[in-house]
Amino acid sequence: MLSTARAAMEGILFTDQYQLTMAQLYFRMGLHEREVLFDHFFRRYPNYDSHQAGYCVNAGLEWLLAWMQEARFGPDEIDYLRSQQTSAGSRLFADDFLEWLLANGDFSGISLRAIPEGRVVHPNVPLTIVQGPLAMAQILETSLLAHLNYPTLIATKASRISESGRGRPILEFGMRRAHERGANAGTRAALIGGAQFTSNVGVSRLLDLPPKGTHAHSMVQLFMALGMGELGAFQAYADVYPNDCMLLVDTVDTLASGVPNAIRVFEVLRRKGHEPVGIRLDSGDLAYLSIQAAKMLNDAGFGDCAIVLSGDLDELVIWQILTQISEEAPRYGVDADHLINRLVYGVGTRLITSWGEPALGGVYKLVAVRENGTWDSAIKISDTPAKVPNPGMKRAWRLYDRRGKATADLLCAIDEDPTQADMLVLRHPSDHTKFRTIQRRELSGMEELHTDIVHEGKLIANLPPLDELRQRRINDVERLDPGIRRLVNPHIYHVSLTQSLWDLKQRLITEAHQATVA
Amino acid sequence: MLSTARAAMEGILFTDQYQLTMAQLYFRMGLHEREVLFDHFFRRYPNYDSHQAGYCVNAGLEWLLAWMQEARFGPDEIDYLRSQQTSAGSRLFADDFLEWLLANGDFSGISLRAIPEGRVVHPNVPLTIVQGPLAMAQILETSLLAHLNYPTLIATKASRISESGRGRPILEFGMRRAHERGANAGTRAALIGGAQFTSNVGVSRLLDLPPKGTHAHSMVQLFMALGMGELGAFQAYADVYPNDCMLLVDTVDTLASGVPNAIRVFEVLRRKGHEPVGIRLDSGDLAYLSIQAAKMLNDAGFGDCAIVLSGDLDELVIWQILTQISEEAPRYGVDADHLINRLVYGVGTRLITSWGEPALGGVYKLVAVRENGTWDSAIKISDTPAKVPNPGMKRAWRLYDRRGKATADLLCAIDEDPTQADMLVLRHPSDHTKFRTIQRRELSGMEELHTDIVHEGKLIANLPPLDELRQRRINDVERLDPGIRRLVNPHIYHVSLTQSLWDLKQRLITEAHQATVA
Repeated sequence: MLSTARAAMEGILFTDQYQLTMAQLYFRMGLHEREVLFDHFFRRYPNYDSHQAGYCVNAGLEWLLAWMQEARFGPDEIDYLRSQQTSAGSRLFADDFLEWLLANGDFSGISLRAIPEGRVVHPNVPLTIVQGPLAMAQILETSLLAHLNYPTLIATKASRISESGRGRPILEFGMRRAHERGANAGTRAALIGGAQFTSNVGVSRLLDLPPKGTHAHSMVQLFMALGMGELGAFQAYADVYPNDCMLLVDTVDTLASGVPNAIRVFEVLRRKGHEPVGIRLDSGDLAYLSIQAAKMLNDAGFGDCAIVLSGDLDELVIWQILTQISEEAPRYGVDADHLINRLVYGVGTRLITSWGEPALGGVYKLVAVRENGTWDSAIKISDTPAKVPNPGMKRAWRLYDRRGKATADLLCAIDEDPTQADMLVLRHPSDHTKFRTIQRRELSGMEELHTDIVHEGKLIANLPPLDELRQRRINDVERLDPGIRRLVNPHIYHVSLTQSLWDLKQRLITEAHQATVA
Repeated sequence: MLSTARAAMEGILFTDQYQLTMAQLYFRMGLHEREVLFDHFFRRYPNYDSHQAGYCVNAGLEWLLAWMQEARFGPDEIDYLRSQQTSAGSRLFADDFLEWLLANGDFSGISLRAIPEGRVVHPNVPLTIVQGPLAMAQILETSLLAHLNYPTLIATKASRISESGRGRPILEFGMRRAHERGANAGTRAALIGGAQFTSNVGVSRLLDLPPKGTHAHSMVQLFMALGMGELGAFQAYADVYPNDCMLLVDTVDTLASGVPNAIRVFEVLRRKGHEPVGIRLDSGDLAYLSIQAAKMLNDAGFGDCAIVLSGDLDELVIWQILTQISEEAPRYGVDADHLINRLVYGVGTRLITSWGEPALGGVYKLVAVRENGTWDSAIKISDTPAKVPNPGMKRAWRLYDRRGKATADLLCAIDEDPTQADMLVLRHPSDHTKFRTIQRRELSGMEELHTDIVHEGKLIANLPPLDELRQRRINDVERLDPGIRRLVNPHIYHVSLTQSLWDLKQRLITEAHQATVA
């Protein structure tokens, strides 16, 4: 399975089989070029069991767009589809369909509106709205979800970890525990969501960030096996990297060996005119060890060098560490705030896999079909009212209260303009007893969430650099109520329908039920 | 970020930065070509909170080998490394090192022994043993772990799900919730571990399996929006795929609409001489609905067609469904065994993400360094005795008791031959109070676990097709004690050291502690 074979698996065949069988059915019915609308959205925030997200951070769009630009059915893929058989041994895909697919099997007919990457997003608000001919819009589903679900999950986790770390730097270290090549998409999402740097070299290069990392336990082990010991390893490191001397101090014994040896090396470094960068603690009671290490470093005159913590960290573990430091540090004569302000977090497994909830359940639902020039709204009934998607072609607005905090996302029909209304009715998407009204003057602003990204296959939006995506997240998180941002049991942010969209939804549900009875 | 940029990120730069800074340090010390040995192993089975694995299934090796064959430092990568800077603004990587890396930066010096893919594996037994020059063996770490950790995790989950489903077919459906491109490696691992087929088209093609899948809710929604209803959708599907008619029956109402409509279509199909394949249930109480659907299908004369269940399934959910069917089916006049024997499981999110424990903590530890022709064993001390790796160049044997069941994996020093001993002492890897002795005649067989895969960069083993990997798993699982196989609180399988390996480990630990004190 060399890279050519891998590329073949990652092109247009990076999809589920039923997308292809449905496409042929639509072709057979003459529906394959019928214009349709799909909404991509998620239904609930990640719930990590002991803690829960109150918002998500949207990510992944740019790499999806790159995939869409290149993926198409070429002769190689068509040959493969021609070889597929039915249970009866006949050809599964007929020649006329395959000929059409060879000529039309790309995304040049697809238009796409989306909430930009880096924005804070909420359940049931479409993140991506896909418009285009039915067959190719349907075939897009699998890859779109595979490219967007995971990055949004990881950007969300990174944002929480960053908030828990009180703005101190987060380093993404998770590559070795990631889901194989998914590591790269996860790393990029982490960098959008709150990680400052990553150890991932390839992604750092692409995003023009310096990759971070110093040495592993194996380096110390090697020097020990060769009779040069931990101190020898540290000295060698300081000799080669005098301006970037960050030492991992827990290979033998953190307080009895690692920190004292690091201090000896730091002293030599300083005499040579170089300031040491810091130490890294990767095991044990990180709160206790960081207090003791800080004390030793302070006493030796290295009160400023960083203390990097790593080892199964996540937002809850960091919160616990900071709580313990605040309580315990003063007892040892260490200023807790000073210590907290020199901490850096190396976060691996639990960030790159979104530990506790390793998937975001983003879905891709048909919401409208164009017939004779007008859009017919589509619905999917469910026993669970919250799972019935909001139908039709829609727009979404974020409403800001007088404090400038986001108070609701409002979904409305395409022909509504809520900015012109004096009073807005905000209906709960599925519970008919829940609604509230807002006077326009109670709001400091309203902001439309979607922007045009692709028009009939052509990219029409700028794809901003990483810094801008990061700034969007920071701005949006800042405009969330603290109750939404908290790590455990966050308040529920309001996602609402206008009265008119609510009425449409109810009408379609009723019609679908009547059709069943009939 | 087009495919060329993606390829650049997935080549030799698919690594952590510290592998490169360590490599330069080794170069500077003249140690970069020193021959070393790294063991890759995991320390504990996945623990999914409410249930736990008692064994793992090894997977991922073939795709790692493909990566190793192509990944190398070329002029492009060297240019990038040349651009990296220290904190002081000087060059991070010096020219002499980069020249060496350009000439030697591939895996042609690496030899690799491994437990073959598909084999059942246990903690602390090396899955992969890497031997070669220090710098490149070190640089291999990140990619090796990223290529092996995740597939072993997923093959393990698939094996559990397959056992829970009592051998009925498992279909892998997880692509849309996978970690982006990791989907493909996860799918392959699922197919090794117990999934019979997948919906993933690209991987099916590579592995020469028919991809599985029929239609989504969106197809039914579309027909409803166009006024043709669910029945119209089913009829269209049956017309286009008369020999592969599998209908998703829960878009509107499973029992009031979906199943009756499916039966109407099946009746027409049969009159035309085609047997329907089955129905799929994707929401609601799957146990209850499958009983009611089976009853309706039976009454209509479709007692043989399959009932595919999907929707957040895992081994625990399947176990619950089967338990409920066994208890409840008879009350409705449905034979529970007959129903269970027509079930098929479509498993998505919870398989492809290993829900409950989304990472396997496989590590890569230096265990020996060659000096003057002899191997010096390396050790890493830890406050947690179970985390101290087993040192030196080792072999591993699996011991089978008189029933033919695996009773222990035994690690021994490279120069030991346990097959020649009349009596074996099996020491617990870290608890000195735990050991047992076994007479050779109490064993029905002993089997060495590692095979030579790569010799100095050259593949010397056959990489068998999927069928063979699957058969290995089936054989190995069959030879596990039922207590090891159970889904909750499995027995602990014995992984042991010979007395001689135990003695070496204790000596190295003592020496390391003495070095600290000194």
